[in-house]
Amino acid sequence: MAAMSAGIIERYAAHLPVTAATPRVTLGEGSTPLVRSSRIGPSVGLEQLYFKYEGLNPSGSFKDRGMAVATAKALEAGAQTLLCASTGNTSASASAYAACCGLRAVVVVPAGGVATGKLAQALAYGATVVTVKSSFDAALKLVRQLADQPGVALVNSVNPFRIEGQKTGAFEIVEQLGRAPAQLFIPVGNGGNITAYWRGFGELVMTAGGSAPRMHGAQAEGAAPLVRGRPVTRPRTVASAIRIGNPASWAGAVAARDESGGTIEAVSDAEIMAAHRRLAREEGLLVEPASAAGVALLLRKAKARQVTDEGTVVCVLTGHGLKDPQALTRGLRIPRPVAPTLATLRRAIG
Amino acid sequence: MAAMSAGIIERYAAHLPVTAATPRVTLGEGSTPLVRSSRIGPSVGLEQLYFKYEGLNPSGSFKDRGMAVATAKALEAGAQTLLCASTGNTSASASAYAACCGLRAVVVVPAGGVATGKLAQALAYGATVVTVKSSFDAALKLVRQLADQPGVALVNSVNPFRIEGQKTGAFEIVEQLGRAPAQLFIPVGNGGNITAYWRGFGELVMTAGGSAPRMHGAQAEGAAPLVRGRPVTRPRTVASAIRIGNPASWAGAVAARDESGGTIEAVSDAEIMAAHRRLAREEGLLVEPASAAGVALLLRKAKARQVTDEGTVVCVLTGHGLKDPQALTRGLRIPRPVAPTLATLRRAIG
Repeated sequence: MAAMSAGIIERYAAHLPVTAATPRVTLGEGSTPLVRSSRIGPSVGLEQLYFKYEGLNPSGSFKDRGMAVATAKALEAGAQTLLCASTGNTSASASAYAACCGLRAVVVVPAGGVATGKLAQALAYGATVVTVKSSFDAALKLVRQLADQPGVALVNSVNPFRIEGQKTGAFEIVEQLGRAPAQLFIPVGNGGNITAYWRGFGELVMTAGGSAPRMHGAQAEGAAPLVRGRPVTRPRTVASAIRIGNPASWAGAVAARDESGGTIEAVSDAEIMAAHRRLAREEGLLVEPASAAGVALLLRKAKARQVTDEGTVVCVLTGHGLKDPQALTRGLRIPRPVAPTLATLRRAIG
Repeated sequence: MAAMSAGIIERYAAHLPVTAATPRVTLGEGSTPLVRSSRIGPSVGLEQLYFKYEGLNPSGSFKDRGMAVATAKALEAGAQTLLCASTGNTSASASAYAACCGLRAVVVVPAGGVATGKLAQALAYGATVVTVKSSFDAALKLVRQLADQPGVALVNSVNPFRIEGQKTGAFEIVEQLGRAPAQLFIPVGNGGNITAYWRGFGELVMTAGGSAPRMHGAQAEGAAPLVRGRPVTRPRTVASAIRIGNPASWAGAVAARDESGGTIEAVSDAEIMAAHRRLAREEGLLVEPASAAGVALLLRKAKARQVTDEGTVVCVLTGHGLKDPQALTRGLRIPRPVAPTLATLRRAIG
């Protein structure tokens, strides 16, 4: 009965391209917490900073929102296989939803371009994983050519149902705050999520009034096609989830920026990892590196006084830190075992 | 405004040992989904099987419920340090809550007895990690001797606020189903969680009527002191989160079993890993091995017709699969990279 049990299709059916005949596919996606910043916000003079912690979706990332809808529509259309190219999160999500629905998942990932935890996830869910010697962009181009095979549903963000499902993140933020935030910071890789949030805020503003936030997209410096205005052939960044050189939702991302009066800027890997560390150590929020990109951009803008304490600011944290164990342990030293004595512990407590 | 944004202290203050003066510490714990089984339940004739997916708590396990309350009470009492011994999940949780509150966390873990992901988590959150050459039970004995140090709050499950917070899992299940389930299956290590759920159901039944579920606890065969009726000196199991030989909440676990007319039984590591695999491949739910113990026990009882389709059955899935990458990838082979051609992909799709 409680809303916390229902998935996003059931909760938001009126706003989604579903009918009574569409299966209510759910793994419990959505209803993620909006956590008020306890230390980062106050440190830069922002008292109303919140984090939308999307890592608490079932497969550990925001992708589950769109995948629930895409999978339901694939089932409705009679598909037997979900197909995608992925930097990791999409493959994990597609594999999870395929598993619960008795579908096959075939995921195509670029060799060396995917965090280990995500690849392990797809395999654990029982997916067929094809690792190709190419970039993500080439892999996506390839799977698009196969999307018309009978029984196959392409569930990359070029699938319109993905964007539709992902816009529910914006719906929830408005419910949780009681209004839209003044500004939203979000990582930008393939451009689908910023497109989806902008659509979600737009639909609410049209029906319920109020104003939509300014949208700030953060790309990684080595993978910033939208900032440079042209595709990047060899995207490079520690943030594997946004290591994309030619975004599928290019136009949607630019429209979100321009229509909202926002920005899309590049942050360095050093800024990303600094924000990643601060989220863990000052907020108790473990995220994958890409998730920290939006926070890195906010911190830069707050220092430059381009963002001040005049309204609510929300940063979308797109994926859980446990997804990327390598990034998690970077620079950390596992301590050597010691004898179990009171004296040892007293020293540790200090 | 929406309930999904509030943490468990705010939502359940009337049922918890808190006052208006207790800080509303939260990382967005609780409000985890109750996911209806799509394939495992029907395969054994159970149409009303649900999974309470506690891996979707902020640090990835059910421990966050109790830690929110324990941390709030520690802050209220003026503590500067959270101290615990841990098989992993408690240390990750304590470290996360310490981080968001500006407290120190000192976690004592048994060498070799903790899943890598969890240790990495505690370090990433900035905790002081002390790895001792001893069992969990010896580590717990040690930290208990230090709990009276000024400014130190011991946050193991011997801390009564932990059990109080964890009972909110039972509250949510009742809200989500609209009633208590007929039977509950739950892994048992230190005995705190089965104690907490039983208390939670008991309090609701006393105030709102209805009946409480029969409680079924699952221990691992190599770490089954409650089944054997005596402590186990060298507990062994793949399920590190329940690798405990001398449960701190022994009496509470036995009371939950006996008062509810339930059982506590041992399942083998093979049964645990088989259930772990089925949860991922048939339900799309990735869990750590310990979480699968309750499902393993249910499957055995269903096959023996000791559990039949006469009421709702809930299995508590205590922690996320991403916590234990080693278990996740056991027996899986990362496929070798291939050339990105249409022919290759067509073969994969089959």
